[in-house]
Amino acid sequence: MLGAEILVRSLVAGGVDTCFGNPGTSEMHFIAALDRVSGMRGVLTLFEGVATGAADGYARMAGRPASTLMHLGPGLANGLCNLHNARRARVPIVNIVGEHAAHHRRHDAPLHSDVEGVARPFSDWLRTAQSAATLSSDCAAAIAASRIAPGRIATLILPADIAWTDGGDAPPAPLAADTAPLRVSSARIESAARRLRDGRNTGLMIGGVALSERGLALASGIADATRCRLFAPMSNTRIARGSGRPPIARVPFAVDDAVRFLAGLDTVLLVGAKPPVAFFAYPDRPSLLAPPGSASIPVAEPEENVLAALSDLADAVGARPRPAASGAALGAAPDSGALTAAALAAIVAHHLPEHAIVVDESLSLGFTLYPATADSAPHDWLQMAGGATGEGLPLAVGAALACPERKVVCLQADGSGLYTCQALWTMAREGLNVTTVILSNRAYATLYGELASVGAQNPGRSALGMIRLDNPAIGWPDIARGFGVPGERAEDAAGFERALQRALAMPGPSLVEAVRTAP
Amino acid sequence: MLGAEILVRSLVAGGVDTCFGNPGTSEMHFIAALDRVSGMRGVLTLFEGVATGAADGYARMAGRPASTLMHLGPGLANGLCNLHNARRARVPIVNIVGEHAAHHRRHDAPLHSDVEGVARPFSDWLRTAQSAATLSSDCAAAIAASRIAPGRIATLILPADIAWTDGGDAPPAPLAADTAPLRVSSARIESAARRLRDGRNTGLMIGGVALSERGLALASGIADATRCRLFAPMSNTRIARGSGRPPIARVPFAVDDAVRFLAGLDTVLLVGAKPPVAFFAYPDRPSLLAPPGSASIPVAEPEENVLAALSDLADAVGARPRPAASGAALGAAPDSGALTAAALAAIVAHHLPEHAIVVDESLSLGFTLYPATADSAPHDWLQMAGGATGEGLPLAVGAALACPERKVVCLQADGSGLYTCQALWTMAREGLNVTTVILSNRAYATLYGELASVGAQNPGRSALGMIRLDNPAIGWPDIARGFGVPGERAEDAAGFERALQRALAMPGPSLVEAVRTAP
Repeated sequence: MLGAEILVRSLVAGGVDTCFGNPGTSEMHFIAALDRVSGMRGVLTLFEGVATGAADGYARMAGRPASTLMHLGPGLANGLCNLHNARRARVPIVNIVGEHAAHHRRHDAPLHSDVEGVARPFSDWLRTAQSAATLSSDCAAAIAASRIAPGRIATLILPADIAWTDGGDAPPAPLAADTAPLRVSSARIESAARRLRDGRNTGLMIGGVALSERGLALASGIADATRCRLFAPMSNTRIARGSGRPPIARVPFAVDDAVRFLAGLDTVLLVGAKPPVAFFAYPDRPSLLAPPGSASIPVAEPEENVLAALSDLADAVGARPRPAASGAALGAAPDSGALTAAALAAIVAHHLPEHAIVVDESLSLGFTLYPATADSAPHDWLQMAGGATGEGLPLAVGAALACPERKVVCLQADGSGLYTCQALWTMAREGLNVTTVILSNRAYATLYGELASVGAQNPGRSALGMIRLDNPAIGWPDIARGFGVPGERAEDAAGFERALQRALAMPGPSLVEAVRTAP
Repeated sequence: MLGAEILVRSLVAGGVDTCFGNPGTSEMHFIAALDRVSGMRGVLTLFEGVATGAADGYARMAGRPASTLMHLGPGLANGLCNLHNARRARVPIVNIVGEHAAHHRRHDAPLHSDVEGVARPFSDWLRTAQSAATLSSDCAAAIAASRIAPGRIATLILPADIAWTDGGDAPPAPLAADTAPLRVSSARIESAARRLRDGRNTGLMIGGVALSERGLALASGIADATRCRLFAPMSNTRIARGSGRPPIARVPFAVDDAVRFLAGLDTVLLVGAKPPVAFFAYPDRPSLLAPPGSASIPVAEPEENVLAALSDLADAVGARPRPAASGAALGAAPDSGALTAAALAAIVAHHLPEHAIVVDESLSLGFTLYPATADSAPHDWLQMAGGATGEGLPLAVGAALACPERKVVCLQADGSGLYTCQALWTMAREGLNVTTVILSNRAYATLYGELASVGAQNPGRSALGMIRLDNPAIGWPDIARGFGVPGERAEDAAGFERALQRALAMPGPSLVEAVRTAP
């Protein structure tokens, strides 16, 4: 059996049955093996950043790794940005990266590069396969590494000569059983419980799997019992929310807002989260957002058993999980007038389908959309976790493939969506159930605020020229049509509501460009 | 003066007056400085790979570096693929990469990464600025490093706190004078001349600046005098060609073709070129393409004085530069029938404007287009030099900015063009004089041959699904329109000729999708 076939068989045996790929010559044996080994679904993307972002979205919804397939150092380089995001989301991914045959590398062919050097900054586990006979155990090691809770980025580099060499017919190497995440000690739980009982100026910041339905019920129960303030980080992998589920606030993006949000706390207990930190540094602003002198105390690290820690903490303070509530009624969505941020958010909130998967790369509009949808039909909310824009559309691809029976609603800022707009084609090719709403303000609008925040007031023509996207305006419906996705543009509230309803009613992918003509 | 202003001023003082950028928060001071310091043209791109590829195209035509501006590790990662190509093209580029403020890095904020680690695999020179006061000398060192002949990739990482700190008002640090490339010793020239005089089985392979008008006249004169075989590598930074100029053949891409092309040579003399090597390794095929037992002898390394070496070699063999010839007449272009490869090439050849800059990322069609245009109006021919697809459209952006008075004709394969299709928007925004011809075969057509070459015959449905782009077909005119570029589709010879003429007559950017319906 050729190495490439051994690898595909080993991936499938290890529960990895989806491969998002952008192949080149060095990956041709892997591609050919897709026909010879059953059980692997190959999904073609037009750009590697779509493949890695899709693998992230897949892992978030399927709870297990997909693989990617990328071509040498430059192909992998194109995928790195969304590997950064996936790594910050702490999801499992198994990257397969083609490499030149060993005897070819010394000749410095045009596509030669230091593939391990390219992979290293964004891989938690990294190995170059050394023989076809050991490829199955390499693959099992990569999968196991990716599955270390909550999830890691594993990169296996596959030289072409190993892919095309016979490696025998041994059965796939067995996968090591997942190591259960460490249970937090009772001393740590008791210490946290004491903080919660002692005072009302305690915050409980939860992340990762604590934002699941079960985690939120436990954490909300603790907040009910102790009156602590419960909140989540700015960026999260997946939040279970919507009607009847406990709502949870997030730390704001803007530093001044975040500082105000956390003001008055003397303790921040961290369960599955890291201390709240500003995305960026600004002159005369703090990096750490909690009040000076306050204590940020890790109760459960993201790698530990977060749900058990919440459960133990609830027991220690005598709290019970908050029961599901009957949802509050949504306010009426405006059916006329300008497409303001509030109108847009209300219309989205109103029409969000039951059990939708919401992908939020809404950036400057996000803090309007998020609270507005708290009482929408129950849904999952996925965010780009690493702050590197251009993951929304790829995340939607992966989530839709993992959950074909659910509707994905991708709330995508316009400037960011352009980084990986090629994802639309994969939605069309695979018939994915994704409705994309382009939040079009024709600017990198976040950067207006950022210019001011760093002290660069009153931007001139040159600075604005590097921020505005209005000359010419992007024609998103045209771009969508070019990639095979039906799209339309809306410029007022009534038009947006009609367009959104049409798009959501359509099977397969659709796009609505919501052009905001008013703040 | 703030660090960011010092940096912009130092770039301009060092002759770097164009900046292709994709900024984020950490670059806001640099952006603001564009209004405070005169002389720098900021060019916004929608994706970092467009910025780096444009800087490559700019350097090829302007003969001096542009700068790029990228955002932290993930932004730089997006630009790496075309930095790989630019590095292989041996052009000068000065990358400015924003980084978090020093005091912010220790908090592992969401966008934190090992920026130096990301930059290293594709940078020849790399430094993180340490203070605003030394920023001007950092910048001068980066520019000087980039200008080491023929050109290098220099990456200067700019922490945000250094950009916003006052660094005094000292004048820009002086730029070190360029070091002249080393002149090849007369012993090496004489040894090469002996090889040329001794036998007819000698090949002269020339690259880099040897493919300029002057270099080609010298090399062709040597070939005329000695009957050696003259040729160029498969991929080249820039070739001066067209009517009246000496034609030059290139080593074919396919290994078997390349081996046949070089068969019979006992010596390959290398002037500004490396020994001919296959792009990829294949089972039972050689990596080195020259006949086994033949000698590949470097006469002038790409970093040495290549033109002087050719001139000295011509003197040593008593050759004179070949005088400009009157060009041969072009065959008539077909005005009806199917849009075959030959018809497409003939039509392009016929209508190529005088002094056009041709960007060739034509891949599977390239070896039809290249010979067909040998007697077109005089033009420059630019290729992606590193084999990493997705540089054609960005190269066209940069070349058009460097030479606004010339028409750029971008011959772009469809699959490859999709990697960086966002470049079309920058063409529209800047009103660039670029006519893009999309060579649409609705597949990664090169990979059909590559599948067979690696021994993977008769691809099945899964393999073909990772290679074909026909379901759905890409609507290039729609995508172009979405980015503000007028586009149309042609599906037969007559239609293509009319569309191409219309496009070439238009000022500013235009696009023709040439769908090949026959081989």
